[in-house]
Amino acid sequence: MRILTGLQPSGKLHIGNYFGAIEPAVRLQTQGEAFYFIANYHAMTTMESAEALQENTFNLALDFISCGLDPEHSVLFVQSAVPEVNELAWILSTVCPMGLLERCHSYKDKVAKGFQPQHALFAYPALMAADILLYDSDLVPVGKDQKQHLEVTRDLAGKMNDAFGEGLFKLPEALIAENTAVVPGLDGQKMSKSYGNTLPIFGEEKPLLKMVNKKILTDSTPLEDPKPVEGSVLLQLYRLFAGEAEYQAMVDAHLAGGVGYGTFKKQLFEAYWEYFRPARECREALLQDPAHITDVLDKGAARAREEAAKVLTRVRRAVGLGWH
Amino acid sequence: MRILTGLQPSGKLHIGNYFGAIEPAVRLQTQGEAFYFIANYHAMTTMESAEALQENTFNLALDFISCGLDPEHSVLFVQSAVPEVNELAWILSTVCPMGLLERCHSYKDKVAKGFQPQHALFAYPALMAADILLYDSDLVPVGKDQKQHLEVTRDLAGKMNDAFGEGLFKLPEALIAENTAVVPGLDGQKMSKSYGNTLPIFGEEKPLLKMVNKKILTDSTPLEDPKPVEGSVLLQLYRLFAGEAEYQAMVDAHLAGGVGYGTFKKQLFEAYWEYFRPARECREALLQDPAHITDVLDKGAARAREEAAKVLTRVRRAVGLGWH
Repeated sequence: MRILTGLQPSGKLHIGNYFGAIEPAVRLQTQGEAFYFIANYHAMTTMESAEALQENTFNLALDFISCGLDPEHSVLFVQSAVPEVNELAWILSTVCPMGLLERCHSYKDKVAKGFQPQHALFAYPALMAADILLYDSDLVPVGKDQKQHLEVTRDLAGKMNDAFGEGLFKLPEALIAENTAVVPGLDGQKMSKSYGNTLPIFGEEKPLLKMVNKKILTDSTPLEDPKPVEGSVLLQLYRLFAGEAEYQAMVDAHLAGGVGYGTFKKQLFEAYWEYFRPARECREALLQDPAHITDVLDKGAARAREEAAKVLTRVRRAVGLGWH
Repeated sequence: MRILTGLQPSGKLHIGNYFGAIEPAVRLQTQGEAFYFIANYHAMTTMESAEALQENTFNLALDFISCGLDPEHSVLFVQSAVPEVNELAWILSTVCPMGLLERCHSYKDKVAKGFQPQHALFAYPALMAADILLYDSDLVPVGKDQKQHLEVTRDLAGKMNDAFGEGLFKLPEALIAENTAVVPGLDGQKMSKSYGNTLPIFGEEKPLLKMVNKKILTDSTPLEDPKPVEGSVLLQLYRLFAGEAEYQAMVDAHLAGGVGYGTFKKQLFEAYWEYFRPARECREALLQDPAHITDVLDKGAARAREEAAKVLTRVRRAVGLGWH
C-alpha cells in the first residue's frame, strides 16, 4: 500500500505541525510504503524569498527525520526533485473544468487572507492531484481543510479514466484524521504562525522557557485558590506531553488550589522538553553531518522518479504524447 | 539570434497553414538559430483522440521537413520532448495574476466557439510564456491573434526579473507578420478546417482536382462574357502559386471574356500542383524512411533539452527550488 503525504516547508516546525502532521505520518509509515514529500512548488505560492524556501526545504527534511521518519523504510523527497509532476498537472488540466477549481475554498480563503490572487494559487488543486496520482497512491492522510482537494483528485482521475481507459489512474482514498490531538496556540486561539502563538519543536532552551512563561494564557486566580480546569490552555498543552497520571495530578492540583501558575508552567516546560529530547538529540547529531540529509533526499528523489516514470509512461502513451 | 515558433498539430496541413506559418518559418530559418516545436501539449486542449494527436504530431514533422525546414540548420522538436516546460509554466504561474489570464481573448473565444472551459485552455498563455522563455528566445514570429500572448510572456518575464533579479529572463520580441499572403477559403470565407473550405498541401491528385473544380466559389457569368476580377477567390488563390506574368494573363483573360471558369480552375490546379511538386516529392521520399523523421525529432529534442537545462538551472537556483 502506497501512502502519500506532502508537507509545506513554511518555516520553523511548531507543535501544531508536529501533532497534526509529523507524528501521524511517522506513526503511519509502518502501514505500507510511505512517500513523503516536501512541497516546495506549493510553498512558492506563499513564500517571501528564494533563500527562505531553500533553507526551509532542507530544515523540514532535517526535522522530519529527527522526529522519527525512517529513511530506510520510507521515501522522503523534495517535490521539485520530480518535476514530472508539472507535466501530469498539465495533462490533468486538459480534463479539469474551470468550475471545479473555482469551487475550491482554499483559493478564495487565501485571497481573503491577503495573498495575491496568482494563477499558481488557483491551479494548486490540479498540481496536488498530480502529486497524488503520479505515484499510484492508495491512501492520502489529509486534514479536513484538504478533503475537498482529494475529491478534486478523484474527480480528475475518474475523468481521465473515462476518456482514456479504465485503470489509467488508481483512485486514492482519503484518510481523514479523526483523533488528532487538539493543539491550542499559547494564547488559546488556533496555533498558527500568522498569530505568533506557536511553540516550536526545536530551539534553544532559555528562549523557549521564557516563551512558555510569558506567552501562555492564564488567568489571575490567586496562588492559594482552586484554578479553572475547563478551557485551560496550560492543561491542554500539558496533556500532549505528560503521561496520564502526571496529567491527572496537575488537574487535581488545579482543583485543590495552593499551587501557582508559575509551577504549572515549569512542569509543562519540563514535560515538553523531555518529550522532544530524543528528537532534539537526533537533530543535533544529524546537524554534524548535513550531507546525510541531502543524501536521504537524493535517494528519495531517485526512488520517487522511478515510480513517477512508470505512471507517466503509461499516461503519455494513453493520451498520445509521443512521436514514435 | 534564437527564433522560436510553435505549430499545433491539428490535422492535415492546408495552404492557409502553409502561407501563414510554414513558409514564413522556412524563410526565417536562415536569420538565426530557429527552434521550431510541434505544440502537442497545447493541442491536447482541443484534440479528439490520443491516436489523432500522435499521428498529427508525426505528420506535422514530416510535412514541415517536406516543405523546406532544414533539420541540419534548425532545431525541430516535439513540445512534450521537453517536459521541463511545464515546470517553468508553474514557476511563472506563481507571479501570474489571475487577471492577466482572465483578460486573454483566446480562452473566451474558444469557449464561445463551444470548446469545454477546461483549466488547460485557461492556463494556455502561461504555458506559452514558458515555451518562449525556456529557450532564451529573441524573436517570436506571431500572428495578430497571438500578439496578446506575447505581451503576457514579456509581462511575466518582467515580473520574474523584478522579483528574482534582472537578467533572469531575456525579454523576447514579437515579429508580427505584416506581409503574409491573404489565403481565402475555397468558398471565399477565411480558410479554416471548421468551415470545411480548406485546400490541403498534400493529397491524391484526383480528389484534390475535384475539390478545386467543385468547391471554388465562382459566379454564373457566361463563358463569353468578361468576368469580375475584384474579390475573385480563384484569382486570389492563383496569385499564390503563379508567377507575376501568368497571374496577369489570367486577370486579362477574365477581363476579355471568352474563357470559362473551368479553364481557369484547371490552370489554378496546375499551378498549385506544380508549386508543391518539390515538397510532394520530398515527402514521398521521406515516407520511405519514417525513421529519419523520428531521428530528426530525437536529435531536436536533445538539442532543445540542452538549452532548456541551462535556463532552468538558472531559474531553479534563483527561486530557491533546491535542497543542497
